[in-house]
Amino acid sequence: MAFKSIGIIGLGLIGGSFARAFCDRGLSVYGLDGCASTLAEAAQADIFQALTDDIDQFLKMKPDLIYICVPVEATKAVLKTLSGKGVTAPVTDGASTKSSVCALAGELGLNFCGGHPIAGREVSGFSASVNGLFDNAVHVLTPVAEGFPEDDLRALHEGIGMRVTVMTADKHDLVFGSISHLPHVTAFSLVEAVNQACPEAFSYTGGGFRDFTRIAASNPRMWTDIFLDNDKTVIELIDTYIDLLKSWREDIADKNEEKIYKRIEEASSIRRSIK
Amino acid sequence: MAFKSIGIIGLGLIGGSFARAFCDRGLSVYGLDGCASTLAEAAQADIFQALTDDIDQFLKMKPDLIYICVPVEATKAVLKTLSGKGVTAPVTDGASTKSSVCALAGELGLNFCGGHPIAGREVSGFSASVNGLFDNAVHVLTPVAEGFPEDDLRALHEGIGMRVTVMTADKHDLVFGSISHLPHVTAFSLVEAVNQACPEAFSYTGGGFRDFTRIAASNPRMWTDIFLDNDKTVIELIDTYIDLLKSWREDIADKNEEKIYKRIEEASSIRRSIK
Repeated sequence: MAFKSIGIIGLGLIGGSFARAFCDRGLSVYGLDGCASTLAEAAQADIFQALTDDIDQFLKMKPDLIYICVPVEATKAVLKTLSGKGVTAPVTDGASTKSSVCALAGELGLNFCGGHPIAGREVSGFSASVNGLFDNAVHVLTPVAEGFPEDDLRALHEGIGMRVTVMTADKHDLVFGSISHLPHVTAFSLVEAVNQACPEAFSYTGGGFRDFTRIAASNPRMWTDIFLDNDKTVIELIDTYIDLLKSWREDIADKNEEKIYKRIEEASSIRRSIK
Repeated sequence: MAFKSIGIIGLGLIGGSFARAFCDRGLSVYGLDGCASTLAEAAQADIFQALTDDIDQFLKMKPDLIYICVPVEATKAVLKTLSGKGVTAPVTDGASTKSSVCALAGELGLNFCGGHPIAGREVSGFSASVNGLFDNAVHVLTPVAEGFPEDDLRALHEGIGMRVTVMTADKHDLVFGSISHLPHVTAFSLVEAVNQACPEAFSYTGGGFRDFTRIAASNPRMWTDIFLDNDKTVIELIDTYIDLLKSWREDIADKNEEKIYKRIEEASSIRRSIK
Protein backbone atom coordinates (compact mmCIF):
# COMPACT_ATOMS: atom_id res chain seq x y z
CA MET A 1 0.00 0.00 0.00
CA ALA A 2 1.09 3.57 -0.50
CA PHE A 3 0.16 6.02 2.26
CA LYS A 4 -2.92 8.00 1.25
CA SER A 5 -3.59 9.70 4.58
CA ILE A 6 -1.11 11.03 7.10
CA GLY A 7 -1.88 11.87 10.72
CA ILE A 8 0.58 14.43 12.06
CA ILE A 9 1.17 14.77 15.80
CA GLY A 10 2.65 18.18 16.62
CA LEU A 11 1.96 21.07 14.26
CA GLY A 12 5.10 23.18 14.72
CA LEU A 13 7.62 24.20 12.08
CA ILE A 14 8.31 20.61 10.96
CA GLY A 15 4.81 19.14 11.37
CA GLY A 16 3.22 22.18 9.72
CA SER A 17 5.65 22.14 6.81
CA PHE A 18 5.14 18.39 6.27
CA ALA A 19 1.36 18.99 6.34
CA ARG A 20 1.72 21.63 3.61
CA ALA A 21 3.94 19.37 1.50
CA PHE A 22 1.71 16.29 1.83
CA CYS A 23 -1.43 18.34 1.13
CA ASP A 24 0.22 19.71 -2.02
CA ARG A 25 0.76 16.10 -3.15
CA GLY A 26 -2.94 15.39 -2.77
CA LEU A 27 -2.77 13.34 0.42
CA SER A 28 -5.31 13.61 3.22
CA VAL A 29 -3.71 15.20 6.25
CA TYR A 30 -5.01 15.03 9.83
CA GLY A 31 -3.53 17.03 12.69
CA LEU A 32 -3.20 16.63 16.45
CA ASP A 33 -1.85 19.38 18.67
CA GLY A 34 -2.35 20.23 22.33
CA CYS A 35 -2.22 23.99 21.81
CA ALA A 36 -5.51 25.79 21.01
CA SER A 37 -3.89 28.74 19.23
CA THR A 38 -1.82 26.38 17.06
CA LEU A 39 -5.00 24.50 16.10
CA ALA A 40 -6.69 27.82 15.24
CA GLU A 41 -3.77 28.86 13.02
CA ALA A 42 -3.68 25.42 11.39
CA ALA A 43 -7.44 25.55 10.69
CA GLN A 44 -7.00 28.86 8.87
CA ALA A 45 -4.29 27.38 6.63
CA ASP A 46 -6.87 25.13 4.91
CA ILE A 47 -4.57 22.13 4.69
CA PHE A 48 -6.12 19.63 7.10
CA GLN A 49 -9.04 17.26 6.62
CA ALA A 50 -9.54 17.40 10.37
CA LEU A 51 -7.81 18.84 13.44
CA THR A 52 -8.11 17.87 17.08
CA ASP A 53 -6.43 18.14 20.47
CA ASP A 54 -7.70 14.70 21.47
CA ILE A 55 -5.60 11.59 20.82
CA ASP A 56 -8.58 9.22 20.73
CA GLN A 57 -10.41 11.35 18.20
CA PHE A 58 -7.17 11.54 16.20
CA LEU A 59 -6.75 7.75 16.16
CA LYS A 60 -10.37 7.32 15.03
CA MET A 61 -9.43 9.13 11.80
CA LYS A 62 -7.32 6.02 11.06
CA PRO A 63 -4.48 7.66 9.09
CA ASP A 64 -2.37 5.22 7.02
CA LEU A 65 0.72 6.67 8.71
CA ILE A 66 1.17 8.42 12.06
CA TYR A 67 3.91 11.07 11.84
CA ILE A 68 5.24 12.35 15.20
CA CYS A 69 6.72 15.85 14.81
CA VAL A 70 7.62 16.99 18.33
CA PRO A 71 10.96 17.36 20.21
CA VAL A 72 12.79 14.23 21.38
CA GLU A 73 11.45 13.86 24.93
CA ALA A 74 7.88 14.53 23.82
CA THR A 75 8.35 11.99 21.01
CA LYS A 76 9.13 9.29 23.57
CA ALA A 77 6.02 10.23 25.56
CA VAL A 78 3.90 9.96 22.38
CA LEU A 79 5.38 6.54 21.57
CA LYS A 80 4.33 5.30 25.03
CA THR A 81 0.84 6.71 24.57
CA LEU A 82 0.44 5.08 21.14
CA SER A 83 1.65 1.78 22.54
CA GLY A 84 -0.79 2.09 25.45
CA LYS A 85 -3.63 2.62 22.97
CA GLY A 86 -2.63 -0.55 21.11
CA VAL A 87 -1.84 1.26 17.84
CA THR A 88 -0.66 -1.10 15.09
CA ALA A 89 -0.56 1.39 12.19
CA PRO A 90 2.85 2.43 10.85
CA VAL A 91 4.43 5.20 12.93
CA THR A 92 7.40 7.42 12.08
CA ASP A 93 8.92 10.54 13.60
CA GLY A 94 11.07 13.55 12.78
CA ALA A 95 13.01 13.98 16.02
CA SER A 96 16.63 15.16 15.81
CA THR A 97 18.15 12.21 17.71
CA LYS A 98 17.41 8.61 16.90
CA SER A 99 19.09 6.05 19.20
CA SER A 100 16.88 6.38 22.28
CA VAL A 101 13.67 6.97 20.26
CA CYS A 102 14.27 3.87 18.13
CA ALA A 103 15.26 1.76 21.14
CA LEU A 104 12.05 2.73 22.94
CA ALA A 105 9.85 2.11 19.87
CA GLY A 106 11.49 -1.31 19.56
CA GLU A 107 10.88 -2.17 23.22
CA LEU A 108 7.25 -1.08 22.89
CA GLY A 109 6.84 -3.29 19.83
CA LEU A 110 5.44 -0.45 17.70
CA ASN A 111 5.33 -0.72 13.91
CA PHE A 112 7.96 2.02 13.77
CA CYS A 113 10.65 3.46 11.50
CA GLY A 114 12.66 6.44 12.76
CA GLY A 115 13.23 9.50 10.59
CA HIS A 116 14.98 12.84 10.60
CA PRO A 117 14.38 15.53 7.99
CA ILE A 118 17.55 17.61 7.62
CA ALA A 119 15.81 20.93 7.28
CA GLY A 120 14.83 23.73 9.58
CA ARG A 121 14.64 27.42 10.22
CA GLU A 122 15.69 29.60 13.17
CA VAL A 123 12.03 30.26 13.91
CA SER A 124 9.53 27.75 15.25
CA GLY A 125 5.81 27.07 15.55
CA PHE A 126 3.10 26.51 12.93
CA SER A 127 3.32 30.17 11.90
CA ALA A 128 6.92 29.47 10.79
CA SER A 129 5.91 26.47 8.65
CA VAL A 130 6.35 26.97 4.92
CA ASN A 131 5.91 25.29 1.58
CA GLY A 132 9.15 24.00 0.17
CA LEU A 133 11.02 23.58 3.47
CA PHE A 134 12.02 20.05 2.44
CA ASP A 135 12.79 20.65 -1.24
CA ASN A 136 15.94 18.73 -2.07
CA ALA A 137 16.70 18.18 1.65
CA VAL A 138 18.05 14.88 2.97
CA HIS A 139 15.67 12.65 4.94
CA VAL A 140 17.38 10.03 7.09
CA LEU A 141 15.51 6.81 7.87
CA THR A 142 16.56 4.62 10.81
CA PRO A 143 14.49 1.42 10.52
CA VAL A 144 13.23 -0.42 13.62
CA ALA A 145 10.26 -2.79 13.05
CA GLU A 146 10.80 -5.60 10.55
CA GLY A 147 7.36 -5.46 8.98
CA PHE A 148 7.34 -1.67 8.52
CA PRO A 149 6.51 -0.55 4.93
CA GLU A 150 9.87 1.20 4.48
CA ASP A 151 9.53 1.54 0.70
CA ASP A 152 6.28 3.47 1.15
CA LEU A 153 7.93 5.79 3.68
CA ARG A 154 10.80 6.38 1.26
CA ALA A 155 8.36 7.06 -1.61
CA LEU A 156 6.37 9.47 0.58
CA HIS A 157 9.46 11.62 1.21
CA GLU A 158 10.85 11.31 -2.31
CA GLY A 159 7.40 12.42 -3.47
CA ILE A 160 7.87 15.77 -1.75
CA GLY A 161 11.33 16.25 -3.24
CA MET A 162 13.54 14.82 -0.48
CA ARG A 163 16.64 12.66 -0.87
CA VAL A 164 16.19 9.62 1.37
CA THR A 165 19.12 7.85 3.00
CA VAL A 166 19.08 4.93 5.45
CA MET A 167 21.44 4.33 8.39
CA THR A 168 21.39 2.85 11.89
CA ALA A 169 20.17 5.05 14.71
CA ASP A 170 23.61 5.03 16.39
CA LYS A 171 25.30 6.03 13.17
CA HIS A 172 22.78 8.82 12.75
CA ASP A 173 23.54 10.19 16.19
CA LEU A 174 27.29 10.19 15.55
CA VAL A 175 26.94 11.82 12.12
CA PHE A 176 24.54 14.54 13.31
CA GLY A 177 26.31 14.84 16.65
CA SER A 178 29.35 15.82 14.56
CA ILE A 179 27.82 18.20 12.04
CA SER A 180 24.86 19.57 14.00
CA HIS A 181 24.94 19.01 17.77
CA LEU A 182 28.63 19.85 18.29
CA PRO A 183 28.39 22.98 16.07
CA HIS A 184 25.44 24.17 18.17
CA VAL A 185 27.44 23.79 21.42
CA THR A 186 30.32 25.67 19.80
CA ALA A 187 28.02 28.45 18.57
CA PHE A 188 26.32 28.86 21.97
CA SER A 189 29.75 28.93 23.66
CA LEU A 190 31.09 31.44 21.16
CA VAL A 191 28.22 33.86 21.81
CA GLU A 192 28.81 33.38 25.55
CA ALA A 193 32.57 33.94 25.20
CA VAL A 194 32.17 37.21 23.27
CA ASN A 195 29.51 38.33 25.72
CA GLN A 196 31.97 37.65 28.54
CA ALA A 197 35.17 39.03 26.97
CA CYS A 198 33.90 42.07 25.06
CA PRO A 199 30.12 42.51 24.77
CA GLU A 200 30.42 45.75 22.81
CA ALA A 201 32.15 43.78 20.06
CA PHE A 202 28.69 42.54 18.99
CA SER A 203 28.03 45.98 17.49
CA TYR A 204 30.91 45.49 15.01
CA THR A 205 29.87 42.08 13.73
CA GLY A 206 29.71 41.62 9.98
CA GLY A 207 28.26 38.93 7.76
CA GLY A 208 30.91 36.37 8.72
CA PHE A 209 30.10 36.44 12.43
CA ARG A 210 26.36 36.56 11.75
CA ASP A 211 26.52 33.50 9.48
CA PHE A 212 28.79 31.75 11.93
CA THR A 213 26.49 32.21 14.91
CA ARG A 214 23.13 32.01 13.11
CA ILE A 215 22.56 28.52 14.53
CA ALA A 216 22.96 29.93 18.06
CA ALA A 217 19.49 31.47 17.66
CA SER A 218 17.86 28.09 18.21
CA ASN A 219 14.84 26.75 20.04
CA PRO A 220 15.84 26.03 23.69
CA ARG A 221 13.34 23.18 24.20
CA MET A 222 14.45 21.30 21.09
CA TRP A 223 18.16 21.73 21.79
CA THR A 224 18.00 20.92 25.50
CA ASP A 225 16.37 17.63 24.52
CA ILE A 226 18.97 16.93 21.86
CA PHE A 227 21.96 17.51 24.17
CA LEU A 228 20.42 15.40 26.95
CA ASP A 229 19.39 12.62 24.60
CA ASN A 230 22.61 12.37 22.60
CA ASP A 231 24.67 13.16 25.70
CA LYS A 232 27.37 10.50 25.45
CA THR A 233 28.21 11.24 21.83
CA VAL A 234 28.04 15.02 22.34
CA ILE A 235 30.35 14.79 25.38
CA GLU A 236 32.88 12.73 23.42
CA LEU A 237 32.75 15.24 20.58
CA ILE A 238 33.19 18.19 22.97
CA ASP A 239 36.26 16.42 24.43
CA THR A 240 37.76 15.92 20.97
CA TYR A 241 37.01 19.56 20.18
CA ILE A 242 38.54 20.89 23.43
CA ASP A 243 41.71 18.87 22.78
CA LEU A 244 42.01 20.45 19.33
CA LEU A 245 41.47 23.95 20.75
CA LYS A 246 44.14 23.30 23.37
CA SER A 247 46.58 22.31 20.64
CA TRP A 248 45.74 25.55 18.74
CA ARG A 249 46.44 27.43 21.94
CA GLU A 250 49.81 25.68 22.25
CA ASP A 251 50.76 26.23 18.63
CA ILE A 252 49.99 29.95 18.97
CA ALA A 253 51.79 30.25 22.32
CA ASP A 254 54.81 28.45 20.80
CA LYS A 255 54.63 30.73 17.74
CA ASN A 256 54.75 27.53 15.68
CA GLU A 257 54.22 29.34 12.39
CA GLU A 258 54.74 26.31 10.15
CA LYS A 259 52.24 24.15 12.02
CA ILE A 260 49.61 26.91 12.22
CA TYR A 261 49.94 27.56 8.49
CA LYS A 262 49.60 23.84 7.74
CA ARG A 263 46.54 23.41 10.01
CA ILE A 264 44.75 26.36 8.42
CA GLU A 265 45.63 25.09 4.96
CA GLU A 266 44.24 21.62 5.78
CA ALA A 267 41.04 22.83 7.48
CA SER A 268 40.48 25.28 4.65
CA SER A 269 40.99 22.55 2.06
CA ILE A 270 38.57 20.16 3.82
CA ARG A 271 35.99 22.95 4.11
CA ARG A 272 36.33 23.83 0.44
CA SER A 273 35.71 20.21 -0.50
CA ILE A 274 32.24 20.28 1.11
CA LYS A 275 29.74 20.70 -1.68
CA MET B 1 44.06 68.75 1.46
CA ALA B 2 41.85 65.93 0.28
CA PHE B 3 43.66 62.92 -1.16
CA LYS B 4 43.57 63.10 -4.96
CA SER B 5 45.95 60.23 -5.67
CA ILE B 6 46.36 56.96 -3.82
CA GLY B 7 49.33 54.61 -4.08
CA ILE B 8 48.35 51.08 -3.18
CA ILE B 9 50.97 48.56 -2.05
CA GLY B 10 49.71 45.00 -2.53
CA LEU B 11 47.10 44.34 -5.20
CA GLY B 12 45.24 41.38 -3.70
CA LEU B 13 41.55 41.14 -2.83
CA ILE B 14 41.61 44.21 -0.57
CA GLY B 15 44.12 46.35 -2.50
CA GLY B 16 42.46 45.52 -5.81
CA SER B 17 38.96 46.26 -4.49
CA PHE B 18 40.12 49.60 -2.98
CA ALA B 19 41.72 50.45 -6.32
CA ARG B 20 38.40 49.80 -8.10
CA ALA B 21 36.47 51.87 -5.55
CA PHE B 22 38.90 54.83 -5.60
CA CYS B 23 39.06 54.80 -9.41
CA ASP B 24 35.23 54.87 -9.52
CA ARG B 25 35.37 58.04 -7.39
CA GLY B 26 37.67 59.70 -9.91
CA LEU B 27 40.90 59.45 -7.92
CA SER B 28 44.25 58.63 -9.50
CA VAL B 29 45.39 55.19 -8.38
CA TYR B 30 48.94 53.83 -8.54
CA GLY B 31 49.83 50.24 -7.77
CA LEU B 32 52.87 48.37 -6.44
CA ASP B 33 53.06 44.59 -6.35
CA GLY B 34 55.94 42.13 -6.37
CA CYS B 35 54.13 39.52 -8.44
CA ALA B 36 54.37 39.75 -12.25
CA SER B 37 51.11 37.92 -12.96
CA THR B 38 49.22 40.15 -10.49
CA LEU B 39 50.62 43.22 -12.24
CA ALA B 40 49.54 41.79 -15.62
CA GLU B 41 45.99 41.16 -14.33
CA ALA B 42 45.86 44.62 -12.76
CA ALA B 43 47.01 46.25 -16.01
CA GLN B 44 44.14 44.58 -17.88
CA ALA B 45 41.59 45.97 -15.41
CA ASP B 46 42.22 49.53 -16.68
CA ILE B 47 42.04 51.10 -13.20
CA PHE B 48 45.61 52.22 -12.54
CA GLN B 49 47.45 55.35 -13.71
CA ALA B 50 50.67 53.37 -13.33
CA LEU B 51 51.82 49.99 -12.06
CA THR B 52 55.24 48.85 -10.94
CA ASP B 53 57.10 46.20 -8.98
CA ASP B 54 59.74 48.71 -7.88
CA ILE B 55 59.32 50.65 -4.63
CA ASP B 56 61.53 53.58 -5.75
CA GLN B 57 59.56 53.99 -8.98
CA PHE B 58 56.34 53.79 -6.93
CA LEU B 59 57.48 56.53 -4.52
CA LYS B 60 58.43 58.77 -7.47
CA MET B 61 54.72 58.83 -8.44
CA LYS B 62 54.25 60.85 -5.21
CA PRO B 63 50.76 59.64 -4.26
CA ASP B 64 48.96 61.86 -1.68
CA LEU B 65 48.36 58.72 0.40
CA ILE B 66 50.21 55.41 0.57
CA TYR B 67 47.82 52.54 1.29
CA ILE B 68 49.44 49.27 2.42
CA CYS B 69 47.19 46.27 1.62
CA VAL B 70 49.21 43.18 2.53
CA PRO B 71 49.03 40.69 5.45
CA VAL B 72 50.24 41.78 8.89
CA GLU B 73 53.87 40.60 8.80
CA ALA B 74 54.39 41.98 5.30
CA THR B 75 52.82 45.27 6.44
CA LYS B 76 55.49 45.64 9.10
CA ALA B 77 58.21 44.97 6.54
CA VAL B 78 56.73 47.65 4.25
CA LEU B 79 56.63 50.16 7.13
CA LYS B 80 60.34 49.59 7.73
CA THR B 81 61.11 50.02 4.05
CA LEU B 82 59.10 53.27 3.85
CA SER B 83 60.87 54.59 6.95
CA GLY B 84 64.24 53.62 5.47
CA LYS B 85 63.38 55.59 2.31
CA GLY B 86 62.55 58.67 4.44
CA VAL B 87 58.89 58.78 3.34
CA THR B 88 56.96 61.67 4.97
CA ALA B 89 53.68 61.29 3.03
CA PRO B 90 50.61 60.03 4.92
CA VAL B 91 50.56 56.21 5.15
CA THR B 92 47.67 53.93 6.13
CA ASP B 93 47.10 50.19 6.00
CA GLY B 94 44.35 47.58 5.92
CA ALA B 95 45.90 44.81 7.99
CA SER B 96 43.61 42.72 10.22
CA THR B 97 45.49 43.38 13.49
CA LYS B 98 46.48 46.82 14.66
CA SER B 99 48.47 46.90 17.94
CA SER B 100 51.86 45.78 16.67
CA VAL B 101 51.52 47.56 13.31
CA CYS B 102 50.63 50.86 14.99
CA ALA B 103 53.35 50.47 17.62
CA LEU B 104 55.96 49.90 14.90
CA ALA B 105 54.74 52.83 12.78
CA GLY B 106 54.95 55.02 15.89
CA GLU B 107 58.48 53.89 16.69
CA LEU B 108 59.54 54.54 13.10
CA GLY B 109 58.06 58.06 13.27
CA LEU B 110 55.97 57.55 10.12
CA ASN B 111 53.03 59.85 9.32
CA PHE B 112 50.72 56.89 9.89
CA CYS B 113 47.12 56.09 10.78
CA GLY B 114 46.13 52.41 11.08
CA GLY B 115 43.02 51.07 9.37
CA HIS B 116 40.99 47.89 8.97
CA PRO B 117 38.22 47.50 6.43
CA ILE B 118 35.67 44.98 7.77
CA ALA B 119 35.03 43.27 4.47
CA GLY B 120 36.34 40.25 2.70
CA ARG B 121 35.64 37.18 0.67
CA GLU B 122 36.74 33.55 1.01
CA VAL B 123 38.83 33.96 -2.14
CA SER B 124 41.97 36.01 -2.49
CA GLY B 125 44.19 37.73 -5.05
CA PHE B 126 43.55 40.52 -7.55
CA SER B 127 41.29 38.22 -9.59
CA ALA B 128 38.95 38.09 -6.54
CA SER B 129 38.78 41.90 -6.23
CA VAL B 130 35.37 43.37 -7.00
CA ASN B 131 33.47 46.63 -7.19
CA GLY B 132 31.28 47.22 -4.19
CA LEU B 133 33.24 45.06 -1.70
CA PHE B 134 33.21 47.95 0.80
CA ASP B 135 29.65 49.21 0.27
CA ASN B 136 28.19 49.98 3.69
CA ALA B 137 31.05 48.11 5.43
CA VAL B 138 32.67 49.41 8.61
CA HIS B 139 36.17 50.88 8.34
CA VAL B 140 38.06 51.09 11.64
CA LEU B 141 40.71 53.77 12.06
CA THR B 142 43.39 53.46 14.77
CA PRO B 143 45.26 56.80 14.78
CA VAL B 144 49.01 56.95 15.45
CA ALA B 145 50.80 60.12 14.22
CA GLU B 146 49.54 63.42 15.63
CA GLY B 147 49.83 65.43 12.42
CA PHE B 148 48.09 62.80 10.25
CA PRO B 149 45.19 64.19 8.15
CA GLU B 150 42.62 61.91 9.79
CA ASP B 151 39.61 63.84 8.48
CA ASP B 152 40.80 63.28 4.91
CA LEU B 153 41.23 59.56 5.56
CA ARG B 154 37.74 59.40 7.01
CA ALA B 155 36.32 61.31 4.02
CA LEU B 156 38.14 59.00 1.60
CA HIS B 157 36.43 55.93 3.06
CA GLU B 158 33.05 57.57 3.53
CA GLY B 159 33.32 58.61 -0.11
CA ILE B 160 33.30 54.94 -1.16
CA GLY B 161 30.30 54.17 1.04
CA MET B 162 32.02 52.95 4.21
CA ARG B 163 31.03 53.68 7.81
CA VAL B 164 34.14 54.94 9.62
CA THR B 165 34.72 54.33 13.31
CA VAL B 166 37.77 55.24 15.43
CA MET B 167 39.24 53.25 18.32
CA THR B 168 42.62 52.48 19.88
CA ALA B 169 44.69 49.71 18.34
CA ASP B 170 44.43 47.59 21.52
CA LYS B 171 40.67 47.97 21.61
CA HIS B 172 40.51 46.98 17.95
CA ASP B 173 42.47 43.80 18.61
CA LEU B 174 40.18 42.80 21.48
CA VAL B 175 36.99 43.54 19.52
CA PHE B 176 38.11 41.69 16.39
CA GLY B 177 39.89 39.03 18.43
CA SER B 178 36.43 38.32 19.86
CA ILE B 179 34.26 38.44 16.75
CA SER B 180 36.73 37.39 14.08
CA HIS B 181 39.94 35.74 15.30
CA LEU B 182 38.33 33.49 17.93
CA PRO B 183 35.53 32.41 15.53
CA HIS B 184 38.18 31.42 12.99
CA VAL B 185 40.00 29.23 15.55
CA THR B 186 36.69 27.64 16.48
CA ALA B 187 35.78 27.02 12.83
CA PHE B 188 39.17 25.47 12.01
CA SER B 189 38.91 23.28 15.13
CA LEU B 190 35.37 22.23 14.27
CA VAL B 191 36.36 21.08 10.80
CA GLU B 192 39.29 19.20 12.37
CA ALA B 193 37.04 17.62 15.03
CA VAL B 194 34.50 16.32 12.51
CA ASN B 195 37.32 15.09 10.31
CA GLN B 196 38.70 13.19 13.30
CA ALA B 197 35.44 11.86 14.78
CA CYS B 198 33.38 11.05 11.68
CA PRO B 199 34.76 12.22 8.31
CA GLU B 200 31.87 10.71 6.35
CA ALA B 201 29.56 13.12 8.20
CA PHE B 202 30.75 15.85 5.82
CA SER B 203 28.61 14.30 3.10
CA TYR B 204 25.43 14.99 5.12
CA THR B 205 26.10 18.66 5.84
CA GLY B 206 23.30 21.11 5.12
CA GLY B 207 23.18 24.89 4.90
CA GLY B 208 23.62 25.34 8.67
CA PHE B 209 26.97 23.57 8.80
CA ARG B 210 28.11 25.18 5.57
CA ASP B 211 27.32 28.69 6.85
CA PHE B 212 28.87 27.85 10.18
CA THR B 213 32.18 26.71 8.72
CA ARG B 214 32.34 29.05 5.72
CA ILE B 215 35.03 31.12 7.47
CA ALA B 216 37.18 27.99 7.83
CA ALA B 217 37.93 28.30 4.10
CA SER B 218 40.35 31.14 4.74
CA ASN B 219 43.72 32.25 3.45
CA PRO B 220 46.47 30.47 5.45
CA ARG B 221 49.09 33.25 5.12
CA MET B 222 46.72 35.96 6.32
CA TRP B 223 45.39 33.92 9.24
CA THR B 224 48.75 32.59 10.40
CA ASP B 225 49.90 36.21 10.64
CA ILE B 226 46.77 37.26 12.53
CA PHE B 227 47.05 34.49 15.14
CA LEU B 228 50.76 35.12 15.68
CA ASP B 229 50.35 38.89 15.82
CA ASN B 230 47.32 39.01 18.12
CA ASP B 231 48.57 35.99 20.04
CA LYS B 232 48.05 37.16 23.63
CA THR B 233 44.46 38.26 23.07
CA VAL B 234 43.62 35.17 21.00
CA ILE B 235 45.08 32.86 23.68
CA GLU B 236 43.04 34.58 26.40
CA LEU B 237 39.92 34.26 24.29
CA ILE B 238 40.59 30.57 23.58
CA ASP B 239 40.97 30.03 27.35
CA THR B 240 37.65 31.74 28.05
CA TYR B 241 36.05 29.69 25.30
CA ILE B 242 37.49 26.36 26.55
CA ASP B 243 36.21 27.12 30.07
CA LEU B 244 32.71 27.67 28.67
CA LEU B 245 32.86 24.44 26.64
CA LYS B 246 33.96 22.56 29.76
CA SER B 247 30.96 23.92 31.65
CA TRP B 248 28.67 22.80 28.78
CA ARG B 249 30.26 19.37 29.05
CA GLU B 250 29.56 19.34 32.80
CA ASP B 251 25.98 20.55 32.44
CA ILE B 252 25.28 17.82 29.88
CA ALA B 253 27.04 15.12 31.94
CA ASP B 254 25.06 16.23 35.02
CA LYS B 255 21.83 16.24 32.95
CA ASN B 256 21.27 19.75 34.30
CA GLU B 257 18.21 20.36 32.14
CA GLU B 258 17.23 23.68 33.69
CA LYS B 259 20.68 25.22 33.26
CA ILE B 260 21.10 23.94 29.69
CA TYR B 261 17.69 25.36 28.75
CA LYS B 262 18.58 28.71 30.32
CA ARG B 263 21.98 28.90 28.62
CA ILE B 264 20.49 28.16 25.19
CA GLU B 265 17.74 30.70 25.81
CA GLU B 266 20.29 33.37 26.75
CA ALA B 267 22.72 32.67 23.90
CA SER B 268 19.81 32.56 21.48
CA SER B 269 18.45 35.85 22.78
CA ILE B 270 21.86 37.56 22.50
CA ARG B 271 22.30 36.21 18.99
CA ARG B 272 18.85 37.42 17.93
CA SER B 273 19.68 40.90 19.21
CA ILE B 274 22.58 41.22 16.73
CA LYS B 275 21.36 43.30 13.83
